[in-house]
Amino acid sequence: MTSESTFINLMRALATDPSARSLLDDCAVISVGAENLILTHDMMAEGVHWLSNADPADVAWKLVASNLSDLASKGARPLGVLLGFMLGEDAWDRAFAAGLQTALVHFDVPLLGGDTVANRGDKRALGLTAIGAATYTPVPARSGARPGDMVYLTGTLGDALAGFELIEAGFDEVGPLANAYNRPEPRLTEGQLLAPLVHAMMDISDGLLIDAERLASASKVEIGIDLARVPLSPSYISYRGDALESRMQAASWGDDYQLLFTAAPEIDLPIAATQVGDVREGTGLSLYDAERRIALPPSLGYQH
Amino acid sequence: MTSESTFINLMRALATDPSARSLLDDCAVISVGAENLILTHDMMAEGVHWLSNADPADVAWKLVASNLSDLASKGARPLGVLLGFMLGEDAWDRAFAAGLQTALVHFDVPLLGGDTVANRGDKRALGLTAIGAATYTPVPARSGARPGDMVYLTGTLGDALAGFELIEAGFDEVGPLANAYNRPEPRLTEGQLLAPLVHAMMDISDGLLIDAERLASASKVEIGIDLARVPLSPSYISYRGDALESRMQAASWGDDYQLLFTAAPEIDLPIAATQVGDVREGTGLSLYDAERRIALPPSLGYQH
Repeated sequence: MTSESTFINLMRALATDPSARSLLDDCAVISVGAENLILTHDMMAEGVHWLSNADPADVAWKLVASNLSDLASKGARPLGVLLGFMLGEDAWDRAFAAGLQTALVHFDVPLLGGDTVANRGDKRALGLTAIGAATYTPVPARSGARPGDMVYLTGTLGDALAGFELIEAGFDEVGPLANAYNRPEPRLTEGQLLAPLVHAMMDISDGLLIDAERLASASKVEIGIDLARVPLSPSYISYRGDALESRMQAASWGDDYQLLFTAAPEIDLPIAATQVGDVREGTGLSLYDAERRIALPPSLGYQH
Repeated sequence: MTSESTFINLMRALATDPSARSLLDDCAVISVGAENLILTHDMMAEGVHWLSNADPADVAWKLVASNLSDLASKGARPLGVLLGFMLGEDAWDRAFAAGLQTALVHFDVPLLGGDTVANRGDKRALGLTAIGAATYTPVPARSGARPGDMVYLTGTLGDALAGFELIEAGFDEVGPLANAYNRPEPRLTEGQLLAPLVHAMMDISDGLLIDAERLASASKVEIGIDLARVPLSPSYISYRGDALESRMQAASWGDDYQLLFTAAPEIDLPIAATQVGDVREGTGLSLYDAERRIALPPSLGYQH
């Protein structure tokens, strides 16, 4: 099978329009009249992005939330979504539809259209397109981080990881950790408040470390992350503690859907966020534990 | 498996925003600032929309063309597309990427983004989202046909049907009929020229008769189609003749991607089109052969 990176490189050769941002950003940004529109399309596959026994309502939620998280990273106001759906078993599809309604009402986003295809009993893949309107121009990008910036993070990391482990181990009780995995909350309000202030912004879907490295690469800077500063929730600490290894895992697991951004150190942030590192001249990611330099782990995050 | 109509009814209950046009139109139409944006998402599935031995470049072309045809029916100017791709065999995916480039260059439409998922050797489904800007407001809809209107059609019908039959029978020579099936040309220019003049417009993707019935239903009128007026190409007539049965087949087969529209009889059309019927007070579709009323066939077109 073609690897994702090979295929994306093939697509990158076609995506020469500046709106496509070389397929290196979370979203495309197109100008229409006086408006800047933000577009993203994310897919989820059974057995990859959801377990076969997952609640279909959770699958629907996550499909919506993961796309809206991309819009959040641009400071966009969502305008609507289009669904690409592969038909399956009747009860599953009805539960998915009900869950989709729950998510769309929760996020106050209209369903605009979409399409369905039959499936042949195979594992399924679902797609969602989300469109939003920029609330601030220039629209934040992964590029733009400047040496001297502070690196910030909304929320806490690792909860989705712990939730996934609990669910896989058969603990299906809905606690805050399982909920963090099943029902992520994209940071739409935060993204809009931050857009005028940040130099670079992205959402963390694949892990803090891998996404910080991507941000460093897009911005042609070095980013230093201090694991001692990585924010953990009380639930996560109860589950796994807050030692270095626990923080390293929280920082290299996806599905957190927090915003990672850089801003000048003198900026007063309008939202709660944790400073987890800084931006320097250089390239790539460097890692610290309470200001002591440490080695990068073998895997920085979720590689597709 | 859930039927498509059952699932679409579930979705229709959610799609209460006026922009969604109750999922009864070819596209969603959203207003952003002074602009009207047109959005559509169409999928294609292996074994349903393409034969497993199809040229991947033809699959790519048709995926783009079928979505752009929806934009054409709104008189929209395409702004770009996003691809939802299921990874497969390497040579197939490379040929698809090359074909996608050919199609995007031909239609002068940028690739803006998208996503990929792994596949497990199953039959594949691909999705494409197309976004366009309306060139005329109000944006044409399926509703709006008025009693007294004439019903018109661009191009000819049946070529794609004949091409499909030739390809299935093993004639893989690329003639005009196979080309009509493999490389449809969405009527983008015609749609833009017609948008200010029409009362109702849609693209014919599932067959003239079924789509005319949909247009009649959306407009709450009766549409009479005269099969003697259905335009056939010389190639199609050479292949199958122009007797009533041949015209009936051409009018009840999909994949033609022509525009079907209604306009006041006094309008001078700016493009070549054939008058194939008229609009009356009433409901549903009525069928004629040289003004003699005839029965509707058991199938009006391609039912998903």
